[in-house]
Amino acid sequence: MKPEEGRKRVIIEAIQPQIDCGRYPTRRIVGDQIAISAAIFSDGHDHVAARLLFKHESERQWRSTSMTALGNDLWSANFTVEQLGAWTYAIQAWVDHFDTWCDDLKKRLAAQPDPSSPDLAKRDLPPQDIPVAFEIGAQLLDQTAARAGASGRESKSADVKRLKTIAASLRALASQKLPLYEYPLSPEIEHLAARYPDLAFASDAKELHLWVDRERARFSSWYELFPRSTSPDPTRHGTFADVELLLPEIAGMGFDILYLPPIHPIGMAFRKGPNNTPSTDPGDPGSPWAIGSPEGGHKAIHPRLGTFADFDHLVAAVRANGMELALDIAFQCSPDHPWVKQHPDWFLHRPDGTIQYAENPPKKYQDIYPLNFESPDWKALWDELRSVFQFWIHRGVRVFRVDNPHTKAFAFWEWCLADLRTEAPDVIFLAEAFTRPHVMYALAKGGYTQSYTYFTWRTEKSELQAYFEEITKPPVSDFFTPNVWPNTPDILHASLQTGDRPAFMQRVILATTLAASYGIYGPAFELCENVPVRPGSEEYLNSEKYQVRHWDRSAAHSIAPLIARLNQIRRTNPALQSDLSLHFHEVDNPQLIAYSKSAPGVDGGPPNVILTVVNLDPHNEQAGWVDLDLKQLGIGHDEFFDVEDLLTSAHYQWHDRSNYVALRPAIMPAHVLRVTRKTDTSGMLDIRNI
Amino acid sequence: MKPEEGRKRVIIEAIQPQIDCGRYPTRRIVGDQIAISAAIFSDGHDHVAARLLFKHESERQWRSTSMTALGNDLWSANFTVEQLGAWTYAIQAWVDHFDTWCDDLKKRLAAQPDPSSPDLAKRDLPPQDIPVAFEIGAQLLDQTAARAGASGRESKSADVKRLKTIAASLRALASQKLPLYEYPLSPEIEHLAARYPDLAFASDAKELHLWVDRERARFSSWYELFPRSTSPDPTRHGTFADVELLLPEIAGMGFDILYLPPIHPIGMAFRKGPNNTPSTDPGDPGSPWAIGSPEGGHKAIHPRLGTFADFDHLVAAVRANGMELALDIAFQCSPDHPWVKQHPDWFLHRPDGTIQYAENPPKKYQDIYPLNFESPDWKALWDELRSVFQFWIHRGVRVFRVDNPHTKAFAFWEWCLADLRTEAPDVIFLAEAFTRPHVMYALAKGGYTQSYTYFTWRTEKSELQAYFEEITKPPVSDFFTPNVWPNTPDILHASLQTGDRPAFMQRVILATTLAASYGIYGPAFELCENVPVRPGSEEYLNSEKYQVRHWDRSAAHSIAPLIARLNQIRRTNPALQSDLSLHFHEVDNPQLIAYSKSAPGVDGGPPNVILTVVNLDPHNEQAGWVDLDLKQLGIGHDEFFDVEDLLTSAHYQWHDRSNYVALRPAIMPAHVLRVTRKTDTSGMLDIRNI
Repeated sequence: MKPEEGRKRVIIEAIQPQIDCGRYPTRRIVGDQIAISAAIFSDGHDHVAARLLFKHESERQWRSTSMTALGNDLWSANFTVEQLGAWTYAIQAWVDHFDTWCDDLKKRLAAQPDPSSPDLAKRDLPPQDIPVAFEIGAQLLDQTAARAGASGRESKSADVKRLKTIAASLRALASQKLPLYEYPLSPEIEHLAARYPDLAFASDAKELHLWVDRERARFSSWYELFPRSTSPDPTRHGTFADVELLLPEIAGMGFDILYLPPIHPIGMAFRKGPNNTPSTDPGDPGSPWAIGSPEGGHKAIHPRLGTFADFDHLVAAVRANGMELALDIAFQCSPDHPWVKQHPDWFLHRPDGTIQYAENPPKKYQDIYPLNFESPDWKALWDELRSVFQFWIHRGVRVFRVDNPHTKAFAFWEWCLADLRTEAPDVIFLAEAFTRPHVMYALAKGGYTQSYTYFTWRTEKSELQAYFEEITKPPVSDFFTPNVWPNTPDILHASLQTGDRPAFMQRVILATTLAASYGIYGPAFELCENVPVRPGSEEYLNSEKYQVRHWDRSAAHSIAPLIARLNQIRRTNPALQSDLSLHFHEVDNPQLIAYSKSAPGVDGGPPNVILTVVNLDPHNEQAGWVDLDLKQLGIGHDEFFDVEDLLTSAHYQWHDRSNYVALRPAIMPAHVLRVTRKTDTSGMLDIRNI
Repeated sequence: MKPEEGRKRVIIEAIQPQIDCGRYPTRRIVGDQIAISAAIFSDGHDHVAARLLFKHESERQWRSTSMTALGNDLWSANFTVEQLGAWTYAIQAWVDHFDTWCDDLKKRLAAQPDPSSPDLAKRDLPPQDIPVAFEIGAQLLDQTAARAGASGRESKSADVKRLKTIAASLRALASQKLPLYEYPLSPEIEHLAARYPDLAFASDAKELHLWVDRERARFSSWYELFPRSTSPDPTRHGTFADVELLLPEIAGMGFDILYLPPIHPIGMAFRKGPNNTPSTDPGDPGSPWAIGSPEGGHKAIHPRLGTFADFDHLVAAVRANGMELALDIAFQCSPDHPWVKQHPDWFLHRPDGTIQYAENPPKKYQDIYPLNFESPDWKALWDELRSVFQFWIHRGVRVFRVDNPHTKAFAFWEWCLADLRTEAPDVIFLAEAFTRPHVMYALAKGGYTQSYTYFTWRTEKSELQAYFEEITKPPVSDFFTPNVWPNTPDILHASLQTGDRPAFMQRVILATTLAASYGIYGPAFELCENVPVRPGSEEYLNSEKYQVRHWDRSAAHSIAPLIARLNQIRRTNPALQSDLSLHFHEVDNPQLIAYSKSAPGVDGGPPNVILTVVNLDPHNEQAGWVDLDLKQLGIGHDEFFDVEDLLTSAHYQWHDRSNYVALRPAIMPAHVLRVTRKTDTSGMLDIRNI
């Protein structure tokens, strides 16, 4: 069967970026300039032209910008996403008969026989029918004028007049018999005509989608703590008010998101005791992830933490300290959760009449009932789960860490997160999914703003490098934003258990300089808490998941000052606020890893370039020669340049690509170097090579 | 908005192969086994299962085959396309609750407390609720039995009975209090249950398309000649009858497609003289591509070539010689073509009332009127062009070489070729497009079976290697089949002009061993015709395009014997009949290129492996060490093996990866080596490493 319009001669393909053939939106951050490219071509020798159409969801009319040919049929155009929310973009391309004509005419004029030429060959060239060509151009301009007249442009009447005048002058030229003709059009006329293209047979590519988040979605520093462990009185359960007292200290360390494990009532049934023992004493607080009791479920607050008024006060206090509060949403229930009685259909029932608790045979988690996403009542379940987010969004929360999202249906998340964003486009969702790559990526594609990563288990240079190259480059970086954690309440990695304080320093330096978003579970982290519940386990001994802890935040061995310094470096160096520029440099020692990040200069200023070198060995000094990829640093061959260690304020003069480093882990296992070109003789920076 | 069914928990993505998100069909050859892979996964820990659905266009019902998990959420399945034509495939995947249950049960059984164990820890394991698990399994089997009963399988009543029996036996087991339980199911039961999956919440991926061609689409040897130059009498214009006399010789050289330039009446208006001069003598025959005269157009035969009866006779004679006739379809008209008067709307008119002839300023081709694919009457134009193919198809032609398809609308080709294939799925279309890569690939995606390539201009080792790696591997090889030509009537490459006979030998050896489909324009090629019309031109002096030539096919310097040998090697070695296995091997001399191709053995026999080494220098002997990628050859480390030069019948014993070659271009510029493993002590080939 023939197409409806067979005269659409232009093909548009290989549009970038797009995620899974446009199935999911590409992600960007407010203020980003996004480059859209495609292969665009037609049959024959005619020229094509293309434009990029784009609009924010709040706009009815497309905006458009001309695409530029990059050669080899590739075209590109940029636009800036200056608003949060959903954007749509599309490419439209067409055969540009006027542009073809201009180009052909120039070739004809260059080849016209020149009767006055001393060169016989030039005199003998075949005629090029210039007057006919002028007449064809005049017709094309007449048609352009007609389109201009029918357009909605403000300048249309002036444009029509101008186009008709030019058409008339072409006809006047055509009627003259001149020995030699010159090109009759100015670039201004060519541009004017291009403003009114003939789109009758234009090809339209499929519309593609973007989701634009706020800055914090890309650049964020998270601090996790258990509020119940924040009481200054070791005999008392911590409260929201106690958390408030810590805010200046946490903000002072430079964090911008304070993240709390679930704050809801905790079930009594099968409550776990300290160190995850199956039996409990009456005083044992239970796991915050065993959510729900007769006092309420996901929309209630644990009474010992405080009231809703206390919570609201905390939200405000966190904001007053320049931070945001993140809540942990864990869609699972203790057997005492109100949903269990109200909505038995939302749970799986065993033939013996009991509700199926969480199991991963042979492991049993009788204190947890998972929700059944194959429930016949799935629509009501989805609505209720969405309403949990809505509840806390209405109380001012804009950041959620979601527990084990990979054990809930993907279709649910895609619907729920998109729906919540229509109401609150500034909400950030962090997926706590430590599972297989396809599953983690599917959650990101389905709407999660940020994702936990395998960073915690990547300790060797080669594996860090391979992993970060995967997650910080397209296609992954177009939908997935890593948030890296050196520790969590569930993961005390072996390297921390054996590496002591230098290992904690190394890991937080890696986290803060490799990734624009990171978090720590404190104060266990800064206090270098590193005893596992048993050898070979990644669980903490006396984990806060099962008991209240009291911490000496002022202990001398705390690495809080280092963390504060790192967060300050991140805030003052834009290079560290995005992952896209991450580039690894060679070092001739497998225990030393080197990488740089850069950000363009503001208002013509020099770029911000940070080069980090980390000793991965927590026990021994390591030294070696860094082989810099100078182009990445904006440094020329054989050039001298300054590097300032932002951790120690030491300055060094480096030269060319090979430079020596030696790092003692107990003192400072890394350099975080700001790279600056020396000013040239005129006192201005030369950034031509950057 | 919620999806209609929110309980479809499985995601299917990254399906391979697919061309441009399924926009175009993937191509295969009858008898191919095609492997379809995808990433398939669900939320949570439940197992998934998947099947590949496929059907030929003639089938109403899907056939299906189970997909196999390859690890890391990747799945794969194969099917064989045993019929020409259009095929559709799709993937369906679902959560497999029964398989999950089987696996969980095995884990439970392995972890059940063993009261008789001497190991106290084993005695103290927590109970695993085995009876409840058995009851759950019984329920799942009941449901499976119900689905079996509702199915259309012949074995359904036996299956229902069996499934119910097993369910009952599980219940009986559940009621027994045993100290230790054993796994109660056989693999046979597991397979039986898998035959009746619960597809209520199955996910269905988008249907994708395949086009399956006949063998000749992949493996073909083309011989082009001008019939008007075939008369044994130098004073006479050649005829179809003259061509018939040459058929035994051409078939004897091993060609399977005889391709003729356009055979239609040639226009008189602006007819070109010898060597493309603008003026003609009355006897000048004109260019066969200036199609159409009062005697007819694309459906007529040039009277001097013969009648339709002669043509039909030629078609039959070509078949009788084991070959096929290919016609050249060039959709352009001489000013004398009947369409010009009958359908002036199909051409572009200039303001002076004349029809726009072909131009590429400053070049003019007044003897050619291009068709205007933006004609308001485009539908009638498309129909008429299609009817040209239909006309010749009805006369028995099944192979078309299409002239300059890239100057006709892509949408036309996609419609036309697909439409013709519904009637004649065995038709082969070769695109003669020497243009930019995106355009060439778009023609292939749009339906061209084979495509001319840049081979003619790729002469250096590095450029040959890079180009053939691009065009013989996915994604390109999934839609594009190269047909490589060392020369054409339009292209006498500089390397042939300067390299003399050795260059012709080198280029035809490269063509026949690098590509499964190739062609030569003869007898210019085998007679090493290499004088350009002027220095720096790729046009032949006294080109057959503009004049009748007479050739001495029996000249002593003819390389026809080499070509015959190469075609024979191609016919007897399946390795050379497909491009997908092409692999380049290192040689320490940039003038020596080495590559292998292989085909699996038939009925457990040894694979067919051909290793070619070509000296690219036409003037000097070149020698060097080939560094073989032994795995590609199926040869083990440190192994001795036989290589037989199929060009010279010489045998060599080679050893391990490094082997020496020296090639003298004037004698034989290449080895075409059949690689054979030595038989092992038992006399059987060991092909485990292949």
